[in-house]
Amino acid sequence: MNDQAAKILPELNRLRGSIDNIDAALIYILAERFKCTKQVGKLKAEFNLPPTDLERESEQVARLRNLAETAQIDPVFAEKFLNFIIKEVIQHHKAAAG
Amino acid sequence: MNDQAAKILPELNRLRGSIDNIDAALIYILAERFKCTKQVGKLKAEFNLPPTDLERESEQVARLRNLAETAQIDPVFAEKFLNFIIKEVIQHHKAAAG
Repeated sequence: MNDQAAKILPELNRLRGSIDNIDAALIYILAERFKCTKQVGKLKAEFNLPPTDLERESEQVARLRNLAETAQIDPVFAEKFLNFIIKEVIQHHKAAAG
Repeated sequence: MNDQAAKILPELNRLRGSIDNIDAALIYILAERFKCTKQVGKLKAEFNLPPTDLERESEQVARLRNLAETAQIDPVFAEKFLNFIIKEVIQHHKAAAG
């Protein structure tokens, strides 16, 4: 890091502190989400419902894309994000069913 | 959906309502995170720092894996999750620098 860049270190560290706080929040909220989807998985396994529900998923995608626009983030990213999480959840459901 | 499965619909809808609330929270928190990383990207571009910082990233991964264990979610998933978000952020940084 050059002398010029060293000048921005306090600002960089301030922002990184916020990012770390936000990441902790994301992890804890994700943990709560997995608690919900685990319950859904148990119900589905118990009543022999398929782990995947395409209608529900497309509703979720549409909802998240709208939310992303309100929050001013890329709707395409929001959709990729949801798919990333759903992929993990489906794995949990399959494990619970199997 | 069979008759048996119809019995679980209220419970399924209750859980899905929570999942939808949590997803909205995730999107808004992610929007805040992108605001921070956008600032980081601007600083880096201004002072010709590379968009990627492997030392910082490995610190973040280690921290998130610990948090995941506390929150009782899969640390491997937490790492994948962080990498997924960082990949998006690096694209933003490159766009800001380019």
